[in-house]
Amino acid sequence: METFFRYNWMVREQWYAWCAELPPEELLRQRTGGVGSILRTLFHVIDVEWSWLQVLQGKPDGAEDFANYQTLEAVREFDRKLHLDVESFVLAWEPSMEKRPYIDRRADGRVDIDAWGEIMRHVIAHEIHHMGQLSIWARELGREPVSANVIGKGLIRHDVNERL
Amino acid sequence: METFFRYNWMVREQWYAWCAELPPEELLRQRTGGVGSILRTLFHVIDVEWSWLQVLQGKPDGAEDFANYQTLEAVREFDRKLHLDVESFVLAWEPSMEKRPYIDRRADGRVDIDAWGEIMRHVIAHEIHHMGQLSIWARELGREPVSANVIGKGLIRHDVNERL
Repeated sequence: METFFRYNWMVREQWYAWCAELPPEELLRQRTGGVGSILRTLFHVIDVEWSWLQVLQGKPDGAEDFANYQTLEAVREFDRKLHLDVESFVLAWEPSMEKRPYIDRRADGRVDIDAWGEIMRHVIAHEIHHMGQLSIWARELGREPVSANVIGKGLIRHDVNERL
Repeated sequence: METFFRYNWMVREQWYAWCAELPPEELLRQRTGGVGSILRTLFHVIDVEWSWLQVLQGKPDGAEDFANYQTLEAVREFDRKLHLDVESFVLAWEPSMEKRPYIDRRADGRVDIDAWGEIMRHVIAHEIHHMGQLSIWARELGREPVSANVIGKGLIRHDVNERL
């Protein structure tokens, strides 16, 4: 589980560096699909990651308003602020938590029950999905997107002396 | 690991159903970004998934030519043909395989070594990334994309009698 989160955090940092090369107005420009702009996409993945992990822990997930985060630096600062909470939960993750039920009592009275392992994977896939959207917008801007490769990032140290 | 593969297979089936609603020429139309068309994206994720799992097993990964798979039905048939190989490897996956080294001897003489666990996650993220690209093209076509949600698909059965 941790490997995928570390992957997402690395790729996110690379998108920040990519964004820094762009005129700021391009970050806020309305585009078709996703959540509508490059900067809002980054804000959204940070927000969703933190919020889901907070609710799993029974902690408040106070919604922030993107209107207050209209620059790349503000979004990065938002990320830095929430990352400590996120990282400490991810690093403490254990396989025994996989099937723990999360009870989601909806406003309409409906009750959904999701396994914690599903929610963690939801958060992971959510970010990868949105980064895929950024990659299309990047090409529409005539720019090369950040690579989505998992391999080549040194995420898992392979065994030595086996099958070599 | 298996959970994410099952997620991808379910989402892929939903994209097939989505594609079936589209005029065939839209499936092949060149678009900006990704691998260039909706149908080629689906062909590509099937091909990449199967090929990586084949090379891990030291089996041939004979490249197929998309030119021979220009209809949705041909791509679905291609998927069905390869899926048995893919599924049997995924279902046999064990945590002990995570750090096993895969030696990639490049044509230029360079040698990369990747852990099997990295390659499996690469295959998973690869498909999620490309489905994110489809979601932008869907909106550009004025259509609602397939949901990328992991939750709500019944992928993991939660424990009962705990924290209820």
